[in-house]
Amino acid sequence: MVDGKFNNITGWAAKQNGTPLEPWTYEARPIGTKDVEIQIQCCGICGSDIHTIDSGWGKTNHPVIVGHEIIGKVTAKGDEVSHLQIGDLVGVGAQAFGCLESDCRACSRGLEPHCPKGVFTYNAKYPDGKVSQGGYAEAVRVNSHFAIRIPSEISPQEAAPLMCAGPTVFTPMLRKGVKKGDRVGVVGIGGLGHLALQFARALGCEVTAFSSSDNKKEECLKLGATKFINIKKEEDLKKAKMSLDYLYITSNAKSNDYNKMASWVDYEGQMCLLALPENNLDINPRTLIKGSKYIGGSLIGGIKDIEKTLSFAAEHNIRPIIEKMPMSKVNEGIQSVRDGKVRYRVVLEN
Amino acid sequence: MVDGKFNNITGWAAKQNGTPLEPWTYEARPIGTKDVEIQIQCCGICGSDIHTIDSGWGKTNHPVIVGHEIIGKVTAKGDEVSHLQIGDLVGVGAQAFGCLESDCRACSRGLEPHCPKGVFTYNAKYPDGKVSQGGYAEAVRVNSHFAIRIPSEISPQEAAPLMCAGPTVFTPMLRKGVKKGDRVGVVGIGGLGHLALQFARALGCEVTAFSSSDNKKEECLKLGATKFINIKKEEDLKKAKMSLDYLYITSNAKSNDYNKMASWVDYEGQMCLLALPENNLDINPRTLIKGSKYIGGSLIGGIKDIEKTLSFAAEHNIRPIIEKMPMSKVNEGIQSVRDGKVRYRVVLEN
Repeated sequence: MVDGKFNNITGWAAKQNGTPLEPWTYEARPIGTKDVEIQIQCCGICGSDIHTIDSGWGKTNHPVIVGHEIIGKVTAKGDEVSHLQIGDLVGVGAQAFGCLESDCRACSRGLEPHCPKGVFTYNAKYPDGKVSQGGYAEAVRVNSHFAIRIPSEISPQEAAPLMCAGPTVFTPMLRKGVKKGDRVGVVGIGGLGHLALQFARALGCEVTAFSSSDNKKEECLKLGATKFINIKKEEDLKKAKMSLDYLYITSNAKSNDYNKMASWVDYEGQMCLLALPENNLDINPRTLIKGSKYIGGSLIGGIKDIEKTLSFAAEHNIRPIIEKMPMSKVNEGIQSVRDGKVRYRVVLEN
Repeated sequence: MVDGKFNNITGWAAKQNGTPLEPWTYEARPIGTKDVEIQIQCCGICGSDIHTIDSGWGKTNHPVIVGHEIIGKVTAKGDEVSHLQIGDLVGVGAQAFGCLESDCRACSRGLEPHCPKGVFTYNAKYPDGKVSQGGYAEAVRVNSHFAIRIPSEISPQEAAPLMCAGPTVFTPMLRKGVKKGDRVGVVGIGGLGHLALQFARALGCEVTAFSSSDNKKEECLKLGATKFINIKKEEDLKKAKMSLDYLYITSNAKSNDYNKMASWVDYEGQMCLLALPENNLDINPRTLIKGSKYIGGSLIGGIKDIEKTLSFAAEHNIRPIIEKMPMSKVNEGIQSVRDGKVRYRVVLEN
């Protein structure tokens, strides 16, 4: 058994719903032959972190250390890990383990997030019953397949949101073959949305940003949007009608009206949910049939998808807009996200 | 103005919700320069006919003559009609008119059913305010673009269901590129479903039939299904889990559980509604996101799609299984459909 640097890992844990995070130490998992230990340099705050802290998607296994936009250096590795070296700068996204068997219909097709044995980076159970713990911490241990080398062009802090927010928006574009000239809409200009605008633009798409705040208009145009629609203005919405081939929905607000959103999509267009709403969708079947439209979803990205996200971002100079903050101010960072004040991603630094 | 044979047209009309159809005569539309008059030889009974008779999709414009699986001979044509001759055997599906303008984003892309100025074959209003009347009648007048020549290999009676049921199931397969080896499921083995099995099989797909009645098993296997799942048997359903790339839902029952159906579809799979339910869909967003799945719909087919349906059916010996009945027994035919007794399509003959 390989020894690591962090046999006990200290991080910022939610001990119950709604209370501030507090320092908490847990016993690290042993470093298996395929695992790596990573000393965390920084970690983004994702909306999922807050949903989990609050048990918004079902009861959370408290105490939990959230955080799945992790960047850090490899400090130890199992005997069978050959693709990473001690000292490599790597990132970990929302997944820490998958079976990776050739007969797994998820892993074998590059769809690791769907692996039935997959373990998300936090608040998920390993086969041995232990709960995974995330990146608001000094270190993390994961299966090395899920630790991805960061291109040198991208700073660690900017790479962090490219581990979850980035592949979440870019994977469905990749897998559905979104291409030059396609008309792409993005609802919700936050951590995910501001990246979606950039990725779609770099693919050569005509990009429309949908937001409830005119304040974001100028920035959206800079980020790649060719049109800006204020979803609170009926006049703007008229212009949006039937104007899109693809609509990426990064907002998971209860007030989302998916039938209305469908009216922005052209015949045979597709809508894709990128953030999980807490409530069920109420869909008028006419919406779908009368326009031959589809609504679906996409879950983070497989490892190849994350690698493509990073290399495409490096090549096309796509970077998140971030607010850096010391890890010790994590509760301030979370409050900023809750208040909808962040432009557009908080990255916590150790 | 061209004179036709039927200045007044007699057919079987629903005069209000739920009462038997009665003979009724209406004044035929004038034959415009691009129109044809068709003496009707036979007409299939489609589920939509009954929904319309009953005002199931919103208040119907009674009296209405339904029927949109029409086969007959051209008896008159406008001066600008060159692709059809008097005496040609043609079919009319669910659409009688569309703008056909080059700047119509529906018509210009072969998506005539979505044309904002499109007129369905019955219970729809022409720009002049007159209501369209369908095929349970002696004749019909339509825009000639929507009258399609029937291949000689197919009998008129068997061609009738290939005007609506056929393209309804084949169009989404065509437009989504369903191909050899794809795993296709069909829910509901009726007028649409029994054709969907045949089309999918002829494309080289692995086909699974989903039905609530074991009685249909043998026939489904003959029609091209390689697997049969009784949706009332939990044991059967276990076998269906994650087994499909495409699922065509031809049932519009209120009891349909779309989240359960989604469990039969593999990662990145698609479900397509082919019959319009009267109630909204209640969709758990996890269903879509966790499997990167989509649900959508498809509306009949464009004219090119109907032509492809007919030629593909001719080539691959795909034929509906029909019960012929004299037009005068239309009310018996309708009752048979209501009772779910038809195997698999009633075709009314003049």
